[in-house]
Amino acid sequence: MSKQSSRRAYTGRVIDVDIDTVQFPNGSTGELEMVRHPGASAVVPFLTDPYAGDPQILLIKQYRYAAEDFIYEIPAGKLDAGEDPAECARRELREETGCTAEKIEHLCTFYTTPGFTDERIHAFMATGLTRGTVAHEKDEFLSLETVTLSRALELIKTGELKDAKTALAILFVAGFRLER
Amino acid sequence: MSKQSSRRAYTGRVIDVDIDTVQFPNGSTGELEMVRHPGASAVVPFLTDPYAGDPQILLIKQYRYAAEDFIYEIPAGKLDAGEDPAECARRELREETGCTAEKIEHLCTFYTTPGFTDERIHAFMATGLTRGTVAHEKDEFLSLETVTLSRALELIKTGELKDAKTALAILFVAGFRLER
Repeated sequence: MSKQSSRRAYTGRVIDVDIDTVQFPNGSTGELEMVRHPGASAVVPFLTDPYAGDPQILLIKQYRYAAEDFIYEIPAGKLDAGEDPAECARRELREETGCTAEKIEHLCTFYTTPGFTDERIHAFMATGLTRGTVAHEKDEFLSLETVTLSRALELIKTGELKDAKTALAILFVAGFRLER
Repeated sequence: MSKQSSRRAYTGRVIDVDIDTVQFPNGSTGELEMVRHPGASAVVPFLTDPYAGDPQILLIKQYRYAAEDFIYEIPAGKLDAGEDPAECARRELREETGCTAEKIEHLCTFYTTPGFTDERIHAFMATGLTRGTVAHEKDEFLSLETVTLSRALELIKTGELKDAKTALAILFVAGFRLER
C-alpha cells in the first residue's frame, strides 16, 4: 500500500490527523485517515523482587477525561523528540511516581489501535526502585496504589482494570517473564 | 473534571477530534483534545474445543497502513450506530473470516489508549464455528491463518504479534478462561 499524497487535516498538541491518498494492492486508490502519534513508553514498576513470591507493583489511579472516571494504569507517557523508549520509561516512572529504577527491561512493543493510529507503546518492567518526590503535570490528577501482582491480575480478570497497555504489560510480564 | 465547552476540530470517516475546555479538580481550566471513536468489538475465534488440549484459533494477517506492514490480528471492527457489541463481534467474524459462531462470550472491555481517545474495545471469544464465504471491504487486504493457542502465545512472547487488542484478548482467554 503506497502513499501517493498526504494532507494534514488537524494539527494538535499530542496528535495530528493526516488524510493520505494511497494505492491499494489491487491497484485502486482511496483515502485513509491516520492519527499520527509520536509513540509512548509504559512501565510496570516492581517494588519487590519480581521473582520472589507474589511481588508488589505500583499502579497509578488517574482521572481520564476519555473514560470520565479514574482508571488504573501503569506509569506511561509519550516519547519526546528523539527520545530512547527506555529513557522515556525511566522519565515517566520518575515524573509520575517519584521512583528511580536500577534496571529497566523491555517487555514488548505493540500498536495500540492500528486501524486509525500509528501509535506504538513500548512496555518495560522496572526493578530496584528507590522512592523520591513526585512532580505531576498540571493536567494530571493521580494517586499511587501498591498492589500485589496477583491482585493486579484479579483487577484485570474482573474488569476493574480497563486500560489496555496496563493489562497487556501485566499479563505479559506475569505470563512470560516470571514463569519459573 | 467537567466539560465547559466543546468544539469539533476535525470530522472524519472513522474518528472525529474534539477540543474540549474542561475544569480540572483543582479549579483551573484547560483544553483537552479528544479523538472520538464509536467503539469496537474484537473476537478470538476457536476452531476447536477451547477446553481440550491445545485448541486452534483463527488469526487474520492484515495489511495495516499505520504499521506499514501485515500484522496478526483477531477479527474486529467498529460498532455501527446502536449496535450491540456481541452482535458486532458476530458480524465482524462473519465478514472477515466467513465463520458463524454458535456461542459468543464476553471476555473484557478496555480503553485502547485513554490518553487521547475514548475508544473502547469489547473482546469476545467465539466457539462452535461454521465456515462460510468471506466478504471483505474494499480497503481490507487480509489472509486467514490457523494457529494453535500455544503458537499464538509464542507470537506474542517473541513480539511477532504486535496488535494490542489481539495480544490482550488472547492472554486474557488463555489466563482466565481456559485454566483448569
